[in-house]
Amino acid sequence: MPIDSYDSCWLRYEPVDDEELLSSYRDRCEHVYASDSAPELGVVREELNRGLEGLLGRAPHLWNHPPRSADGFLAIGLPDEMRPISETVDTDAVRSLDEDGYRIRSVTWEGVDCTVITAPTDSGLVYGTFHLLRLMSTGQPIDDLDIVEEPANANRLINHWDNPFRGKVERGYAGPSIFDWERLPDLRQRYFDYARLLASVGINGVVVNNVNTKIPSREGANEAVSRRAGWQLLESDNLEKVEALASVFRRYGIKTYLSVNFASPMLVGDLETADPLDADVEAWWERKVDEVYETVPDFGGFVVKADSEGQTGPYDYDRDHAEGANVIARALEPHGGRVWWRAFVYGSHEDRAVQAYNTFEPLDGEFHDNVTVQIKNGPIDFQPREPISTLFGAMPETDLGCELQITQEYTGQNVHACYHVPQWKEVLEFDTYADGEGTPVKDLLADREGQGIAGVGVVGDDPNWTGHYLAQANLYGYGRLIWDPDLTSEEISEEWIRQTFGGDSTVVETVNEILMNSWDASIDYHTGSIGLMHMMYNGSAALENHYDPSPEEWPEYHGASEDGIGLDRTSSGSDYTGQYREPLASRYEDPETCPEELLLFFHHLPWEHELADGTTVVQRLYDNFFAGVEAVKELRAQWHTLEGEIDDRRYRHVADRFDEHVLQAERWRDTIVSFFYDYSGVPDEDGRVPLEA
Amino acid sequence: MPIDSYDSCWLRYEPVDDEELLSSYRDRCEHVYASDSAPELGVVREELNRGLEGLLGRAPHLWNHPPRSADGFLAIGLPDEMRPISETVDTDAVRSLDEDGYRIRSVTWEGVDCTVITAPTDSGLVYGTFHLLRLMSTGQPIDDLDIVEEPANANRLINHWDNPFRGKVERGYAGPSIFDWERLPDLRQRYFDYARLLASVGINGVVVNNVNTKIPSREGANEAVSRRAGWQLLESDNLEKVEALASVFRRYGIKTYLSVNFASPMLVGDLETADPLDADVEAWWERKVDEVYETVPDFGGFVVKADSEGQTGPYDYDRDHAEGANVIARALEPHGGRVWWRAFVYGSHEDRAVQAYNTFEPLDGEFHDNVTVQIKNGPIDFQPREPISTLFGAMPETDLGCELQITQEYTGQNVHACYHVPQWKEVLEFDTYADGEGTPVKDLLADREGQGIAGVGVVGDDPNWTGHYLAQANLYGYGRLIWDPDLTSEEISEEWIRQTFGGDSTVVETVNEILMNSWDASIDYHTGSIGLMHMMYNGSAALENHYDPSPEEWPEYHGASEDGIGLDRTSSGSDYTGQYREPLASRYEDPETCPEELLLFFHHLPWEHELADGTTVVQRLYDNFFAGVEAVKELRAQWHTLEGEIDDRRYRHVADRFDEHVLQAERWRDTIVSFFYDYSGVPDEDGRVPLEA
Repeated sequence: MPIDSYDSCWLRYEPVDDEELLSSYRDRCEHVYASDSAPELGVVREELNRGLEGLLGRAPHLWNHPPRSADGFLAIGLPDEMRPISETVDTDAVRSLDEDGYRIRSVTWEGVDCTVITAPTDSGLVYGTFHLLRLMSTGQPIDDLDIVEEPANANRLINHWDNPFRGKVERGYAGPSIFDWERLPDLRQRYFDYARLLASVGINGVVVNNVNTKIPSREGANEAVSRRAGWQLLESDNLEKVEALASVFRRYGIKTYLSVNFASPMLVGDLETADPLDADVEAWWERKVDEVYETVPDFGGFVVKADSEGQTGPYDYDRDHAEGANVIARALEPHGGRVWWRAFVYGSHEDRAVQAYNTFEPLDGEFHDNVTVQIKNGPIDFQPREPISTLFGAMPETDLGCELQITQEYTGQNVHACYHVPQWKEVLEFDTYADGEGTPVKDLLADREGQGIAGVGVVGDDPNWTGHYLAQANLYGYGRLIWDPDLTSEEISEEWIRQTFGGDSTVVETVNEILMNSWDASIDYHTGSIGLMHMMYNGSAALENHYDPSPEEWPEYHGASEDGIGLDRTSSGSDYTGQYREPLASRYEDPETCPEELLLFFHHLPWEHELADGTTVVQRLYDNFFAGVEAVKELRAQWHTLEGEIDDRRYRHVADRFDEHVLQAERWRDTIVSFFYDYSGVPDEDGRVPLEA
Repeated sequence: MPIDSYDSCWLRYEPVDDEELLSSYRDRCEHVYASDSAPELGVVREELNRGLEGLLGRAPHLWNHPPRSADGFLAIGLPDEMRPISETVDTDAVRSLDEDGYRIRSVTWEGVDCTVITAPTDSGLVYGTFHLLRLMSTGQPIDDLDIVEEPANANRLINHWDNPFRGKVERGYAGPSIFDWERLPDLRQRYFDYARLLASVGINGVVVNNVNTKIPSREGANEAVSRRAGWQLLESDNLEKVEALASVFRRYGIKTYLSVNFASPMLVGDLETADPLDADVEAWWERKVDEVYETVPDFGGFVVKADSEGQTGPYDYDRDHAEGANVIARALEPHGGRVWWRAFVYGSHEDRAVQAYNTFEPLDGEFHDNVTVQIKNGPIDFQPREPISTLFGAMPETDLGCELQITQEYTGQNVHACYHVPQWKEVLEFDTYADGEGTPVKDLLADREGQGIAGVGVVGDDPNWTGHYLAQANLYGYGRLIWDPDLTSEEISEEWIRQTFGGDSTVVETVNEILMNSWDASIDYHTGSIGLMHMMYNGSAALENHYDPSPEEWPEYHGASEDGIGLDRTSSGSDYTGQYREPLASRYEDPETCPEELLLFFHHLPWEHELADGTTVVQRLYDNFFAGVEAVKELRAQWHTLEGEIDDRRYRHVADRFDEHVLQAERWRDTIVSFFYDYSGVPDEDGRVPLEA
C-alpha cells in the first residue's frame, strides 16, 4: 500500500488493550461536558474526539450541559462557567494558578463520578486535556486523580532556524522546512498537527524563522541572499503569511515570534542607518511593530542575533548591546511583546569561551524590562558536553533565557541516535552558586515572567518529522523537561516510548536503555569524556558540516600539541575560570579538583598526565573512543532485538540509521585516535593504536 | 482549507466545457473495450478511468468484449487480439512499427463508430492512450483520426542526480528527492504519479541515482560520504529497493537504471582493485550484474561517470575509457543491458572544451556493442548557450547519447522562468555536416537502438514537482521533443499550457509568449548574447552555487583582460575549431564568419572590436545585459495580466518567483557590466555604465 502521509509521533492514540483500564476510561470519558464559551475549547473538543476515538474505540458524546443520563462524565471548563466544576473545586485556587497551569481532579458531583479539568486560562484547558490523554495513552489509572500543574518556565519556545522561501533549514536534518512561505497564507494540515505536537508537551511560543536573517557570509553570497525578494519576513507583503501561521498556533495557546535583522530599517525600510540611537530608526521600529500587531494581534516578539557570524549589530554604530536591544524593545512594549536578544557573540580573537560574559555581564541592569538575554547552555556551541555558561547567575537584574539545541548539530545530525534530555538535565541542575550553594540554573530561570527556555527546532518535512524516529524523543523530552525540570530523563523517555511504541514491557525497557545510553556513547566517540570540544569537519556541504571528524581544523578548540592537549582557561590562560563564582572558580582552576569530564576544557595537560585512577590522559582518550564505538554497536544490537516487536517500517528505518551510526562512529574513532597518536607518539596500552594500516 | 497534496501538472483532466466537443468525446469514449491480456492494460484502464471521468464528467464503461449495445466505443489492444482492431487496421503494418510506436484510427466496425488504439507492444498501447487523452485535454476533435506515431529516439531517459539516503538532489531545486530510499521497498503514491507524468510524454527509462556515486571531493568529505552505509545501490541489501521502484515504472513501460561507481568492485565488493583488465574485476562485475537481474529482471543498465570531478576511472589503472566501459558492458550483455558511459571528463590543464573530443574520438569503434557514449550538448557544461559538442558525428562506429539538462542549473535554478525547449531544439537541429550538409544532431541520434537522449532530472518533493510551476513545461517539453524532434517549441508549449492552465485563448497566448521569450532573456543577463560562458558564483551553498554572478572566479571561461574579452579557440589557440568538420571549422575560425552568438567563445577580441552592425563588443554586451533585465520585467508584467485568469495559488507562487527573478537579473546586470567596465574602461554610450554609486 503506497504511503505518502507523515508520522503521528507520540499522538498515536492506539486502542487501549487492557480490558480493565479500557472500561474505567470509558466510564469516565465517554461523556464529555465542555462549555463552548472559550475558543480553545474547539481545540479541546477536536483532540478529545480524535484521542478518545483512538484510545476507546469510539468517539465521546459531547455535551453543552451536564449529561444527566450518564453515570460518569468528563467536565472541562474555566472555574466558574460550569456547576460540576465550580461546585467541586476551589475556584479561587484555580484562578490563582500561574498562566498555563491547570487542575485535574476526580470528583463526585450530584452522585455521579466526574473528572474535572479546569484552569485559569483557555491554554490551561488545552494542556490539561493533553495531560489526561497522555495518562490514558501511557496506561495510567484515572479514577482517583488530583493533579495541579504549573509550568516551571513562563516562556517555552522553539527557535526554527528555517530560512524563508526555498525552505532550507540551517542545521535541519529532516528535510526542508515544514513552513511553505511561498504558499502561505494557504495552510497545510501539517501546521495544525505540528501545533498539536507542541501543545501536547507544553510549548507556548514558536519563532518561525532563522536567527540568521542574512545567510552568513560565504564568498560574497551574503548580499545576494539577504537581498532576495521576500527574505525579510517584516516586509509588509509577508505579514499576512505570518498571521496565517499565527492563526493556527493561536488555537493551541502558542504565540508566534519572528527573528529579525538588526539592520531591518535599512533592509526592509529605506533608511541609511540602523543606529539604535537614531531618531528615524526609533520611529521606524515603532511604525513597523505597530504594523505587525495590526496584522498579528497576539504576536510574541522578536529574536535578534546581532554582531555575530556576519550579522549586523550595534557595534557597527559603536553602540552596546543594551542600546541595540532597547530601541526594539521600546517599540514592542506598548503591545506586550518581548525582544529575545542572543548572547552568542564572538568575533574578537580572544578565547570564544570568555566573550559572551565579557560582553554582557557589564550590561546587567541596562536592558529594558521586555528584553530577555538568550544564552546558549555552554560557552562554545552546543558541544556534546560543555561547562555551563558563566552568564547564568551573573546578571541578576536581567531576564535571562537558556538556549538549548534540539536538532543534533554536533551529535550525529539525526542520523545517529542521541537522546539529549540527560544533557539538558545536567545543564538545568547545574549549581551556579549565584545565591550560594543550591542555586541551579533551573531555579534561576523559573518563575519569572520574562524568562524561559528556547530550543533550536528539530522538525522538517520528512515523513517522520525529525529524520531519525528516535529523535522525536528529543522534541517530546524538550517540551516535557522545560515544563517540569524535576522530571527525570527516564520518566520522560518512558512516557514517550509508551505513547510512541506502545506499552509492551520489553519494548519499553529496550528503547529506554538505548535512549539512556546514547548520549554517553556520543560524547565518547565525538570528543572523549574528559572535556575536549569541537573536532568536527567544517566544510559547507549540508550533511558533512559538523558531521565528519576533522581535528586538524580546530587547534583553537582542543589545543593538541606535541607536549600535550587541552586549553588553559585558568587564570594563567584565558581565565574563563575566573568568570565563575566560588567555589566553582577554584574547583576548575586546579586540575586536581576540576571534574574529569571537563578537565581538558580548562587545562592543557601533558599526554601522559595521570588521572585520578592512574590512567594517562592519552590512554583515557583512546579508551573513550574505543568504548564509544562498542557502545554504539551495543545500541544497534539492542535495537535488533526489537525486530517483529514494533512495526516493520519504523524498525527498518532505525536499523538502517544504526548501520550508518556504527560506521561513522568507527570513522570518528580511527580519525581522532590517529590524530592523538601523531601528536603524542604514545601507543595504546592495548595495542589498538597506532591502527594497523 | 489546508492543503498538503501535490500538483497534478499537465494531467489535470479538467472538465471539457465545449458542449459540442464534449458530446463527440462521450460518443466515442463512454464505452471502452480493452482486452485484459496484457499487463499494461491495467494501467491503460486506470488512466482512462481517471482521465475520462475528469474530462467527460463520468467514468467510462469498461468491456472485455465489443459492447453491442453501444453505438460507439474505444477499442484498445494488440493487433490480433480483438476483432474491432484486426478487422479495421493493417495488422502487419502495426506489428512492424518501431518499439513504443502505436496507431490511433477512427474506424467503422459492424456499422458502429469506433476509435482504435493499437500497437506492436504493450508500451505502445500506454503511449497511445495518453495521446488520445492529450487530444481531448487540448480540445482537439477526435472523430476522424488516423495517427501513426513512432519515437525518433529509441532511448528516452531521465538521469536523476538524486543521492541515495538523506535525499539530497545535486542541482535539485524542488526539494529533496522524491525517492525515499530508507523507506523503500515501501512505495509512495507519488512514484506512481511520477511514472504517469513520464509515460504521458514518452519517457522510457529512469536512472534513479546520481552519476556522482561519490560526493565530489571537498576538503576530505569524499571518503566519508562514499563510505556511508547504503550509499552504493549495488549493495545487495539495496537491490530490493531498486526492484520496488522498478515494479512501479515497469507498469508504464519505463525501465530502471542505476548510476554505478567505476570502483564498485572495491566500494561494494572487497577487491583490492577496479582495474578493468583484472580477471577478478571482470568476474566481480559478472556476478554482481547476475544478482541485479535476478532481482530486477527488466533492468536497463548502468550509467558511469569515470575520471571526472573526483570519480575513479580507468585512468587510475592506465586503461582507456573503452577498456573501462567494456568490462561492465560484457557483464550486462547476456541480459540485454547497456552501459551509458559519460564523455564529460576533464581535469587536465588544457581548455575544457577540447578534452571530451580528444579523449573519445580516437576510441571510435573500440566500445562494446552495448555501450552508449553519453555526450553533453556542449563542450563546457549546460551553459545558457553553447556551441554544439564536436563529438556529434565524430564517432560513426559508436552509439552516442546526447545529455541535456532539464533542471535549470545555470539558468536561474527553477527560481527564474526559463523555457528550455528552444535551446534543445537548437541543439538537435544543429547541422554537424557529418555526412555532408544536412546531418543535424537529431538525425545522428535517431533510429539506432543503442542511441538516445538523456535529460538531467528536474523533479523533487516540492508540491509542484519542479520548484517553479513554469518549469513543469521543461519536463513536459523534454519528453515531447525527444519523442518527436520535428515538433516546434510553440507546438509543445501550447500543448502544455492547454493541459496545465486550460484553453482560454488569452491565457494560452500570454503564457506562451512568456515561455518563448524567457530563454533569450536568460542568455542576455547571464552571459550576454555573443558567446560568453560561465560567470556563475561557485560557492557551495546549495542555492548560491551557479546562481549568483561571480565573474572574477572564472577567467578561464571568459578571458576578460584589459585588452579584450573572449577565448581564442581557433588554430592559434586551443584549436577547438579544428575539431569541427568543414565548413564549420572555417566558419568558426574567422571572426568575420563566426556566428555572433558564439563569437567570444571562439575568439578573444578587443573591447572595441566592431560587430557587423558597427556596435562594439563591449557596447553590445552592455546592451544585452540591460535588455535582459527589461525582458524579465516584461515577462513579469505579462504574468501579472493573468491575475484572476488562473487559480490564485499558482498565480501568486509564480508572481513571487518573478519578483526574485527581476531582482536577481538586476544583480547580474550590475555585477557583470561593472566587471566589464573595470577591465575595458569603456563607458556605456547611453550613460548607464559606470553605474551611479
